[in-house]
Amino acid sequence: MDDVVGIYPDWLSKRAPTPNKAAIDRAKARQNVLTKPLGSLGQLEELAITLAGLLKTDRPSIDQPHIILFAGDHGITAEGVSAYPSDVTQQMLANFVSGGAAISVLAREQGANLHVVDVGTLGEGSQANVQVDKISRGTANFRHGAALTPDELIHALQAGQRAVTRSVDAEADFLIFGEMGIGNTSSASAITAALTGQDIAALVGAGTGLDDTRIAQKARVLSDSLKFHELDEGDGAPLTVLQKIGGHEIAALTGAFISSAQAGIPVLVDGFICSTAALAAVRINSSIRDWMIFSHRSAEPGHAALLEAMKACPLIDLGLRLGEGSGAALALPLVRLACTLHNDMATFESAGVSTAS
Amino acid sequence: MDDVVGIYPDWLSKRAPTPNKAAIDRAKARQNVLTKPLGSLGQLEELAITLAGLLKTDRPSIDQPHIILFAGDHGITAEGVSAYPSDVTQQMLANFVSGGAAISVLAREQGANLHVVDVGTLGEGSQANVQVDKISRGTANFRHGAALTPDELIHALQAGQRAVTRSVDAEADFLIFGEMGIGNTSSASAITAALTGQDIAALVGAGTGLDDTRIAQKARVLSDSLKFHELDEGDGAPLTVLQKIGGHEIAALTGAFISSAQAGIPVLVDGFICSTAALAAVRINSSIRDWMIFSHRSAEPGHAALLEAMKACPLIDLGLRLGEGSGAALALPLVRLACTLHNDMATFESAGVSTAS
Repeated sequence: MDDVVGIYPDWLSKRAPTPNKAAIDRAKARQNVLTKPLGSLGQLEELAITLAGLLKTDRPSIDQPHIILFAGDHGITAEGVSAYPSDVTQQMLANFVSGGAAISVLAREQGANLHVVDVGTLGEGSQANVQVDKISRGTANFRHGAALTPDELIHALQAGQRAVTRSVDAEADFLIFGEMGIGNTSSASAITAALTGQDIAALVGAGTGLDDTRIAQKARVLSDSLKFHELDEGDGAPLTVLQKIGGHEIAALTGAFISSAQAGIPVLVDGFICSTAALAAVRINSSIRDWMIFSHRSAEPGHAALLEAMKACPLIDLGLRLGEGSGAALALPLVRLACTLHNDMATFESAGVSTAS
Repeated sequence: MDDVVGIYPDWLSKRAPTPNKAAIDRAKARQNVLTKPLGSLGQLEELAITLAGLLKTDRPSIDQPHIILFAGDHGITAEGVSAYPSDVTQQMLANFVSGGAAISVLAREQGANLHVVDVGTLGEGSQANVQVDKISRGTANFRHGAALTPDELIHALQAGQRAVTRSVDAEADFLIFGEMGIGNTSSASAITAALTGQDIAALVGAGTGLDDTRIAQKARVLSDSLKFHELDEGDGAPLTVLQKIGGHEIAALTGAFISSAQAGIPVLVDGFICSTAALAAVRINSSIRDWMIFSHRSAEPGHAALLEAMKACPLIDLGLRLGEGSGAALALPLVRLACTLHNDMATFESAGVSTAS
């Protein structure tokens, strides 16, 4: 955490609250007497108990989930690392707020509030229902220089915190973060290599849909970039890594993960890009790890390394690789049903059912 | 299918309808133009296309799901193969209809109709809201004789068909089957060995919660039973297997899987016990396989062999081993969201989003 000290804001290292032990104990006791063989609801039993601790009640429920999408553009697209042009970032912002994107459909269907924050896209103007919170447009091409200036990094981290604060003020009790940014699997793959020490070639995937030749080219560009920034040894300090090879939306996500945990709001972590920011956040402030529930295992090969680094066991594995927070939004019904089962099932005693011999 | 001929009812071998090719083609074309990289919703894209074919529309949705629970008791419990007494089967029937069981909670939460059918429990009387459709109470102990008589098997198969017909008449458009029967993982493990040829010792699990010593004892009982019935070579004809070592509820499930496919209603297949019946059903009538969607991978070790035999790739893997149809009911939101995404997302053209290069 060396690099937190100094120019970076103090709040990043403030400890998150500890999960409520009394609520956890009561929830465990309740799981033991519900009318089912103990352990027969598998991962969902543990999940209900975890949420009891985070929501400070032995009857946890999710009543006001908010989804916050952070968007930014990436100079590294100049190296031909994406199947789509950067214009798509802007176009998708419009699609998010007009209701046609996957995450819009998933949010609407589940009664989740959807907030879109432009923390660094190339867009010049403003769009209705998109919060603009940026001091620059797009990152620099990190093949030849730092993606972000220290000021830009600080602004993006704070933008993440500000977005979380708005949701907390609006009484959100559960958060999902998502992202949009053409080129951001390149940044995320490079960050994963820099934070985990794994070989970049094994971490690079198709992103939005590259063929094998272009995946190999993407891997070469990222390998060169890691060497250029001397981050190819896997020992990168998280804030330095975010500044050199990150992006506005990834830094905003990092700030958001830290501040939501500090505010005592559980987060359902989406796939590859979000997990990059989640690992950076945990490396900056390990106390926040308790507040993360992992939703899904992405089809992007780099995701496995991140999940392993955080000892995370996600709920679903459906070959998803869309981003936008869509994997987390798809897992939300499982989280809610884990709570409902925990809260509403009868006990052996109340139902008059015999117990095991 | 030799043993279908003769004393067993003709309807078992009647072909199920073929999925609608035109709806599949239109759904595929739609998936190609939705505002996401093609393939980025992974297994959910294929699922929406499959449902389009089954529901004969390029905009599939599930409006009236029904859950049918079949219950029966098992004479094999005399061999000490279960952690719970047979009384629990009856007690759980009361819990299902009074709303306290896991499946009751899951059905209520998702607006699914729940129907409970006693096809062979030890219960003598009737319970409110439980349909009784049985000609005997409990199976014989298959360690020393056939679990069911041919007449009992036929009755149970027809009871499955009758239950499906009631739901079809009530305009169900999607079905989940579940089961309850203390001792039925023993029957299911033995059936799995008889149908797949895998070694019984590798298929036996904890059921409702046996320790290692009792699991080993259960494996010995089942190995002896398979030898007794000369079913230890793995080449058992499905109806013979169901009669010798099956159960009323497993046979009812088999009849239900066949008749629901014949009626053109898709089924979300639950875990280990249901998959045993599903494999028996597919072996009796292979045309029904298209109508099955697999919900989850059970913690019971025998389930993997069944899934492999049906080339099934379930949606979730959460260490569940409760039965009751609970795994399928937990996966239902994913099936519905796959439809909603398919139906409600914008297209590249309608949203003005650029396509891939």
